[in-house]
Amino acid sequence: MNETPATGDDPTADPAIRQEILSLRASIDNIDAALMHLLSERFKFTHRVGELKAQAGVLPADPARDREQIQRLTSIADQAGLDPQFAEKFRDFIVSEVIRHHKRIAEEYGEVRPLDTYS
Amino acid sequence: MNETPATGDDPTADPAIRQEILSLRASIDNIDAALMHLLSERFKFTHRVGELKAQAGVLPADPARDREQIQRLTSIADQAGLDPQFAEKFRDFIVSEVIRHHKRIAEEYGEVRPLDTYS
Repeated sequence: MNETPATGDDPTADPAIRQEILSLRASIDNIDAALMHLLSERFKFTHRVGELKAQAGVLPADPARDREQIQRLTSIADQAGLDPQFAEKFRDFIVSEVIRHHKRIAEEYGEVRPLDTYS
Repeated sequence: MNETPATGDDPTADPAIRQEILSLRASIDNIDAALMHLLSERFKFTHRVGELKAQAGVLPADPARDREQIQRLTSIADQAGLDPQFAEKFRDFIVSEVIRHHKRIAEEYGEVRPLDTYS
């Protein structure tokens, strides 16, 4: 069992399986490219939100928005056949990145405030 | 400063800023819905890869594929104006979810193997 090679690059693997895996990988790669580009757009929007909040001198935190967003994402995940817990983990992951960005923006505005929300 | 309210739900905030934030949030919400649906498709593909590998009795690990994928994502992130380190963190996040799925698939096939890759 330890000598079993990985499928994708193994010329001895069943050619039909090998072909299907390569085709699936091409689709995964396309989706990843789309995800990267969408995330880039998303960060542009949150960057602008961060700027506006810093300019206006208002707190970035908005617990009502957070709750609404988690509820919305959980419901979309459910419809899309995703684990709703995954949706929440995904949001947390993105939020942590946005917080990092927002801290940078706040520093540019000469002030560091508690930045615990992302939009 | 501690009494400064959050912008989005604050009726006293500058109406123009408030309007722009609400509009940005609507765009963020649309992008999040798209991200959820794309991720759902992505997990379908990795699920099928997991099944094929389990059926074929080959190891899921494929370090060459991993390296190629990290390189590709880093380059796409760079073009898309994203932090390349973020691309790698994002991949790690998704991979950890796929590993969780693959473990379940391998268990269904009556065997638990080291599952340290996702496609």
